[in-house]
Amino acid sequence: MKYVDFVDQSYKPKTTDVICDFYVEPDGLSLTEAAGGVAAESSVGTWTELTTIKPYVEKLAARVFSIDGNNIRVAYSIELFEHGNMPNILSSVAGNVFGLRALKNLRLNDIHLPRELVQSFKGPKYGVTGIRKLLGVKDRPLVGTIIKPKLGLKTNDHTKVAYDAWVGGCDIVKDDENLSSQRFNPFDDRVVATLEMRDRAEEETGEKKVYMVNITSETKEMIKRAQFVQDHGGKYLMIDILTCGFSALQTIREQDFGLVIHAHRAGHAAFTKNPKHGISMKVIAKVARIIGVDQLHVGTVVGKMSETQEEVSENCEALRTELDGLRNVLPVASGGLYPGLVPALMSFFGNDFVIQAGGGIHGHTEGTVSGAMAMRQAVDATLHGVSLTEYAETHKELQEALEIWK
Amino acid sequence: MKYVDFVDQSYKPKTTDVICDFYVEPDGLSLTEAAGGVAAESSVGTWTELTTIKPYVEKLAARVFSIDGNNIRVAYSIELFEHGNMPNILSSVAGNVFGLRALKNLRLNDIHLPRELVQSFKGPKYGVTGIRKLLGVKDRPLVGTIIKPKLGLKTNDHTKVAYDAWVGGCDIVKDDENLSSQRFNPFDDRVVATLEMRDRAEEETGEKKVYMVNITSETKEMIKRAQFVQDHGGKYLMIDILTCGFSALQTIREQDFGLVIHAHRAGHAAFTKNPKHGISMKVIAKVARIIGVDQLHVGTVVGKMSETQEEVSENCEALRTELDGLRNVLPVASGGLYPGLVPALMSFFGNDFVIQAGGGIHGHTEGTVSGAMAMRQAVDATLHGVSLTEYAETHKELQEALEIWK
Repeated sequence: MKYVDFVDQSYKPKTTDVICDFYVEPDGLSLTEAAGGVAAESSVGTWTELTTIKPYVEKLAARVFSIDGNNIRVAYSIELFEHGNMPNILSSVAGNVFGLRALKNLRLNDIHLPRELVQSFKGPKYGVTGIRKLLGVKDRPLVGTIIKPKLGLKTNDHTKVAYDAWVGGCDIVKDDENLSSQRFNPFDDRVVATLEMRDRAEEETGEKKVYMVNITSETKEMIKRAQFVQDHGGKYLMIDILTCGFSALQTIREQDFGLVIHAHRAGHAAFTKNPKHGISMKVIAKVARIIGVDQLHVGTVVGKMSETQEEVSENCEALRTELDGLRNVLPVASGGLYPGLVPALMSFFGNDFVIQAGGGIHGHTEGTVSGAMAMRQAVDATLHGVSLTEYAETHKELQEALEIWK
Repeated sequence: MKYVDFVDQSYKPKTTDVICDFYVEPDGLSLTEAAGGVAAESSVGTWTELTTIKPYVEKLAARVFSIDGNNIRVAYSIELFEHGNMPNILSSVAGNVFGLRALKNLRLNDIHLPRELVQSFKGPKYGVTGIRKLLGVKDRPLVGTIIKPKLGLKTNDHTKVAYDAWVGGCDIVKDDENLSSQRFNPFDDRVVATLEMRDRAEEETGEKKVYMVNITSETKEMIKRAQFVQDHGGKYLMIDILTCGFSALQTIREQDFGLVIHAHRAGHAAFTKNPKHGISMKVIAKVARIIGVDQLHVGTVVGKMSETQEEVSENCEALRTELDGLRNVLPVASGGLYPGLVPALMSFFGNDFVIQAGGGIHGHTEGTVSGAMAMRQAVDATLHGVSLTEYAETHKELQEALEIWK
């Protein structure tokens, strides 16, 4: 089979097919050939004719069934993939194809898995409903903070910052993506001490508080750490899903701890930032949801991260759209956020999301408690349709926050 | 601390520092600010001043110690990282930084880990020396094939192709990166049947033969599959290290099976292809070596993959240069190779590498046996300093191969 044999625009995809949308820029080939090349190399084809091909194999060829400018759609028989094996699926549709010399650029923009494949994974255990139930927060956005400085704080100082954030009004305290078990703040000590502070903050505020502790490490160590969190009364764990990888994420989900999984996407922009090459964050969001995370960072629209509004919308859509009965994943906005941005964030995200602010809380001149208060005040004002400047007249923490970050 | 506080060109890195080389293109900042931003966001800083910073934390700040055009070098205190935790290291130096709005492009071009961190990982168990000993091949390149068509062959046809390749002269038969345990060719059956063929081929040829079986899947399943391979007398396993991820790779290495680890890099070009953004393959090569793979795909210089000669050189260098006593990793050239390319490959790679050809063997008009013979003949000719056209006069398989692929 030649590359062009993988193009069949009359093909009507079956409900059992995997469908991938790619953006393709050929280098020295026609678009049709390049499109066929993508379908070939990600299914049963290669660059030359084979003596070992069989008619029953040719039937499994992926088909380019749509070419629209540089955007192509490819349908793959479900037979090509192993059930319940996400790395296997990605090795086909997001593997060697990116490196082909015949392509100047290639981007996997979307992926659709058929029900049978989706259901071979666990999906989110808690999702939005489970998280709201756990936290007892019915309809406002959740407010979270990241302990800052992101690295270096000793355990005692770490727990102090956590406590301040909680009593100020944060629902969530989270480790930063690169805190794991360094000598200055070892994992076990941190979990025990921070959860003690959580208990104190819960008692004092009458609110439910959660600590998202970062277990990112080698798989068996992650399992051990997750077990430790569960044994000590934690409710959440956090994983850097891309630097760990999907095998380990799947392993943690399949261990089926009684813990909400918060997914951090550190490193995604290495391959999502270029609109013409790589993999879209939307694809990663779908993959993470299917494997079974409960929360995922999706960008901020405003703030220090670079995604466009359209991209962030698509990421959210991937977490929220009906997907073979999977629970919805809670989107997390994080990166350069502060109280003044809350109205814009809520107008974009609605109420079902986490506003996560690190510097925008701990950078408050009066400290972390006031920073957290200001953030909750901004959320309350927006929920009640009051402008921040008006609300700030009677809420000095918000007033100060609005003066610090303009 | 502001971003610029992370720049100190008078700083002399310590032998215990982690050092990263980045290419930086700012978007709206000066290069110095952008450089400082990279160091800040990958160590203890953020976009705003913090009330929670401590003097003892400021001492841990990463430092930009060199700025040369758009190329910067950053030194990180070893204290910032957890020993034996590769995802943690990458979450710092190859994490959020790629997504900063203030950077148009950012590429991690090189990474240097200090001895203490390197030695917290296992490194290659076999490496080049161990592999040569296992195969009993002293000084020529190893010749491998990938079973093609890459997906779809039923187990019986798969093993037939494997047998033909071995008796024709291949040392190695390998699964393709997206073959795992699909219904048409389930893992356990395939391992058993292919290893039987290996035994037959060894007996008939008097040569040692190996089968690199792809265990890519969820971590516990990978461990199970690796154990199965070992229990059935296999000597190698293959992992798609990027679609699986580094946690799982580390887990497999730490299980310490008596199996050589062949690392496939499917998906790398999603983030390595753009010379201005993402992560270089050289970094991935170092990371994989430190964790402990024995063989790694590094590009082909010639063939269907897009890397430049310089990039492939750097990848090889990462596998071969002295690195705190770690064993050398065997580079694998794979992708669009055929016998006519062997002299160019050997002149570039030397003798310590694997020439892996799929289509370039199974596409031989006389079939796989002849394809494998032609490839071994091309290697023999080049080893003896004879031109392929001259050698082909007395070797018809090579003669035919030279006619098919020009």
